[in-house]
Amino acid sequence: MTLRISELSERTGVPVATIKYYLREGLLAPGEQTAPNQARYGQDHVHRLRLVRTLRDVGGLGIQAIHQVVEALDDEQRSMHQVLGAAHRALAPRDAGTPQPDATRSVDTLLEDLGWQVSADAPARAELARALASLRDLGRDVDAQVFRRHAETLDALAAFEVDSVTQTASRTHAVEALVIGTVVFERALVALRRLAHEHHSSQRAGPTPGP
Amino acid sequence: MTLRISELSERTGVPVATIKYYLREGLLAPGEQTAPNQARYGQDHVHRLRLVRTLRDVGGLGIQAIHQVVEALDDEQRSMHQVLGAAHRALAPRDAGTPQPDATRSVDTLLEDLGWQVSADAPARAELARALASLRDLGRDVDAQVFRRHAETLDALAAFEVDSVTQTASRTHAVEALVIGTVVFERALVALRRLAHEHHSSQRAGPTPGP
Repeated sequence: MTLRISELSERTGVPVATIKYYLREGLLAPGEQTAPNQARYGQDHVHRLRLVRTLRDVGGLGIQAIHQVVEALDDEQRSMHQVLGAAHRALAPRDAGTPQPDATRSVDTLLEDLGWQVSADAPARAELARALASLRDLGRDVDAQVFRRHAETLDALAAFEVDSVTQTASRTHAVEALVIGTVVFERALVALRRLAHEHHSSQRAGPTPGP
Repeated sequence: MTLRISELSERTGVPVATIKYYLREGLLAPGEQTAPNQARYGQDHVHRLRLVRTLRDVGGLGIQAIHQVVEALDDEQRSMHQVLGAAHRALAPRDAGTPQPDATRSVDTLLEDLGWQVSADAPARAELARALASLRDLGRDVDAQVFRRHAETLDALAAFEVDSVTQTASRTHAVEALVIGTVVFERALVALRRLAHEHHSSQRAGPTPGP
């Protein structure tokens, strides 16, 4: 497959000006130069454009964060585990501040209890600690059992997902799948959880008439 | 408890200028006027400030979205189910576009299979459909069984969470708990899922040496 930039745009739904911007920013590899002012693009470009758009539209990532992810993906020296770490750092909120020490300790204890081996500087540690601290400040301390049950389900599913990914042949495909799994699948889960809540709320409380 | 604005600021860690901004924007009820240029604040203000900050810092909501949530919370005419709907709409991405029709149908089918009753215009429907469409476009179609297992866990947990909330005495406390549960707890779950993935990725793939 060889495509002109206009055809690449049609196939992916990404405007030509945006494709040119991604080329300048290094999010997309240059096409094959066929004339001084013309280049041809292939299947890899279609795929990469879809990935960039997904990170942006579904993951809500900015250009700089997408750059970090794409750079890690393209660096063959980095293991799948390292690329996952890069994706997690790109997804972490920028200026969220340091969580309270006791919330940090709660997370440490939970991870120890679960037997999860997670690096000390994983941004999700701080994110979890901040969320737990917020819940406590608001007088809504998390029921440890409920949380534990969530953790165990996620544990089993993460094992399944990571296993199915590591069985694919190519490194690029595997790491990309893991990044997509992180960014897109967690949006899907959040949406699914909201739907479950709406269902149970409608069952229990029942909608009242009115606007 | 009566507090001057400076004391309210100290207790919540929110700068006085920001408190004044929230008062102007109607996110915080006016204090009790004690002199032409002085007002006193109480426990409700402390609590509301913490809620506003949580929606902002943990949920990543903008002022307009926080306004929608707070307005729904304060309107005693709205049922818990309606306030939850308002929170979901406030959390939904603004300009995400209409999902593909076949992805929308997949979501309809899933919800039907699960027996979940969810209103036709629930924003989480579209969010889930967009996420599923992205996965398919990227050649990472979701394994129906994995997804189903997630849905069933979330179903059981949502039932438990909604039940525990609807058992609290006051409407305000119940709806607030539900909103916090949505905004903060889903951040906690996302963080927990990333930690589970990091653990299993480190177990399977193993980190490679190097930077």
